[in-house]
Amino acid sequence: MNNAHLQVDLRSAQSALPTAKDKLLFTPGPLTTSLSVKQAMLHDAGSWHFEFNALVANVRERLLKLAGVSRESGWEVVLLQGSGTFGVEAVFQTCVPPDGKVAVLTNGAYGDRIVQMLKHARIAHAVLRAPEDQPVDPAALDQLLTEDRAVTHIAVVHCETTTGIINPLEAIGRVARKHGKINVVDAMSSFGAIPIDFELCGIDFLISSANKCVEGVPGFSFVFCRRKVILACEGFARSLSLDLLGQLKGFEKNGQFRYTPPTHSVLAFSQALNEIEQEGGVAARGDRYRRNHETLLTGMRDLGFEVFLPASVQSCIITSFHTPTDPKFSFESFYRLLSERGFIIYPGKLTLVDTFRIGNIGRLFPSDLDQLVHAVRGTLCEMGCAVPVRYK
Amino acid sequence: MNNAHLQVDLRSAQSALPTAKDKLLFTPGPLTTSLSVKQAMLHDAGSWHFEFNALVANVRERLLKLAGVSRESGWEVVLLQGSGTFGVEAVFQTCVPPDGKVAVLTNGAYGDRIVQMLKHARIAHAVLRAPEDQPVDPAALDQLLTEDRAVTHIAVVHCETTTGIINPLEAIGRVARKHGKINVVDAMSSFGAIPIDFELCGIDFLISSANKCVEGVPGFSFVFCRRKVILACEGFARSLSLDLLGQLKGFEKNGQFRYTPPTHSVLAFSQALNEIEQEGGVAARGDRYRRNHETLLTGMRDLGFEVFLPASVQSCIITSFHTPTDPKFSFESFYRLLSERGFIIYPGKLTLVDTFRIGNIGRLFPSDLDQLVHAVRGTLCEMGCAVPVRYK
Repeated sequence: MNNAHLQVDLRSAQSALPTAKDKLLFTPGPLTTSLSVKQAMLHDAGSWHFEFNALVANVRERLLKLAGVSRESGWEVVLLQGSGTFGVEAVFQTCVPPDGKVAVLTNGAYGDRIVQMLKHARIAHAVLRAPEDQPVDPAALDQLLTEDRAVTHIAVVHCETTTGIINPLEAIGRVARKHGKINVVDAMSSFGAIPIDFELCGIDFLISSANKCVEGVPGFSFVFCRRKVILACEGFARSLSLDLLGQLKGFEKNGQFRYTPPTHSVLAFSQALNEIEQEGGVAARGDRYRRNHETLLTGMRDLGFEVFLPASVQSCIITSFHTPTDPKFSFESFYRLLSERGFIIYPGKLTLVDTFRIGNIGRLFPSDLDQLVHAVRGTLCEMGCAVPVRYK
Repeated sequence: MNNAHLQVDLRSAQSALPTAKDKLLFTPGPLTTSLSVKQAMLHDAGSWHFEFNALVANVRERLLKLAGVSRESGWEVVLLQGSGTFGVEAVFQTCVPPDGKVAVLTNGAYGDRIVQMLKHARIAHAVLRAPEDQPVDPAALDQLLTEDRAVTHIAVVHCETTTGIINPLEAIGRVARKHGKINVVDAMSSFGAIPIDFELCGIDFLISSANKCVEGVPGFSFVFCRRKVILACEGFARSLSLDLLGQLKGFEKNGQFRYTPPTHSVLAFSQALNEIEQEGGVAARGDRYRRNHETLLTGMRDLGFEVFLPASVQSCIITSFHTPTDPKFSFESFYRLLSERGFIIYPGKLTLVDTFRIGNIGRLFPSDLDQLVHAVRGTLCEMGCAVPVRYK
């Protein structure tokens, strides 16, 4: 009988294997990962087993090191099942007291998402909005905090992947510290590639996820937190699954996730940590992404594309381009034809202005961005668009 | 430069590969999966890409079919990032109105976990507790619903994996229908192996997860729901990430998860669905688990082990045994020595009485259970315990 089942497995394995090679992902995550990261998932781990617990402990240690913080200086990191959004929401669901109020600085979809979270959780909040092509404004925050004494927490997105803009963490941190507020940073798409000085930026909570610049696969987020700040949140949690303090206590009690972890994603992440360490850490990873970004920029400019953001606030994570106004250009066709050539960019726009986005992160190298630019040129010709592309 | 990175990848891939073969997991999930399910994860998928969206739509169709329900008869299924617990909590966070009240039937840790969820979400609730070796009591529910008119929802765990006991879904469903209450069933460990008639059991919501009897890897849960019941929950959600109605609307709007899905877990799950279909569906999968359970039972009884539950309420999912009282028996050593022989059972107990648990689910066959029993015998001898084992 075992043999009969073995045959079933082999047949179905064949049907599961795609005939074509994988397309490259030029998106802000999930992203293209190394084969070795994916191969780490060819094993089943018992989520309560001491060997897996040791791996989780090791992953947490190495994350703290990658972040440049330590337990000795009061930091902890908590892994949480689900996407990055779950991690961000967990901070607010767990750490804002019943009478707390959050000031959200936003200049894009991910800042706006924090506002949505607070609305769902019925948490009081104030919103400081900046135009999507400008950084959020620390001076406006200073003024708000002077006027509205009810605010207890600040929330800001480091790299707003709506556009790829970088927000000024240091200046915001200074304002947060000046007013004695708890500072929550969504560093989803920047952590691992853009160095962040947690103390200089006055950070209390910082969230990122497995499938961003560390180049793991999706399945969990991780939240860095000041131990004494999170320990003061006892009893606030409005959700069991998203109870970050409960999750920390679980790890400290027996080394386990409280509820079933994405074991394979954790195995992959451990390998992804090996690879970022071998590459040379955050600085080297950021260098590669910057070279990717520069290769893309040079190539796309040659094709006449205009970049959406001023260079001074542009990150190396993702690049937004104005959509050409040539009547022969259709973004839907552009996307589909690029996909047929093996290149997947982000489908659709998140900005108010008509733009499209190309990600530079993941297991991609300048030569891949060069190939992408070549495919963009071919696609433009296939669509009958003028090259260089036209605006207005 | 690309070549330099390739070398890094190969080196780290080697260091990631364990030298020993994988141990078999006799746990209630994460569980041992087929190699073909794991191999399906050797690809990166773009989570907004139309090809991945088509796969997600296909997975949802096939889940409805596996459950024996259909869109035509008013059913939907929503996938949600995170573990099974996230899926169960999402139902309550999304579907209980502000003035709602949940009657929880519990006879174990997973029923108790629902109570914890409701406490965290500040949702009113009543608890009907049964002893851990007895099914929950539909007559007690009938009485409660007669006396307490505030109750709007019923919650029950189908197979309480604390012990392996099966609760009477049909009788509970009849009571729920008689009183016109919304009936929420946690079928985490039973769905896919124990047939469930959704209509006969008067079910409104049923939750399971990827890494149980469908034999996928962890990363998401799925929630079957009556469309008209969930559509009536507009505005109730207390969490954005756990907003099940928002998630359903996301799938219906553009075929996408609202937030990054565990793409690799979804790829693996699609292959796991192929394999359960090829095996012959829920009935055939249940048959295999029953044969696993019977093989285990016969072998363990030969070794003198006593089963915790009466046979009438024992599921084929997981089996609890009384811990021997032989002073030479230590569960910690027993667990560790079995692990050294390549067999991982559930570490520790969840019951009040001193028991240990062995799971029968996952890509395991009767011959694997037979090998496990042999390893148990060897381990008992190694520990110097009497065989058959002694109780008092």
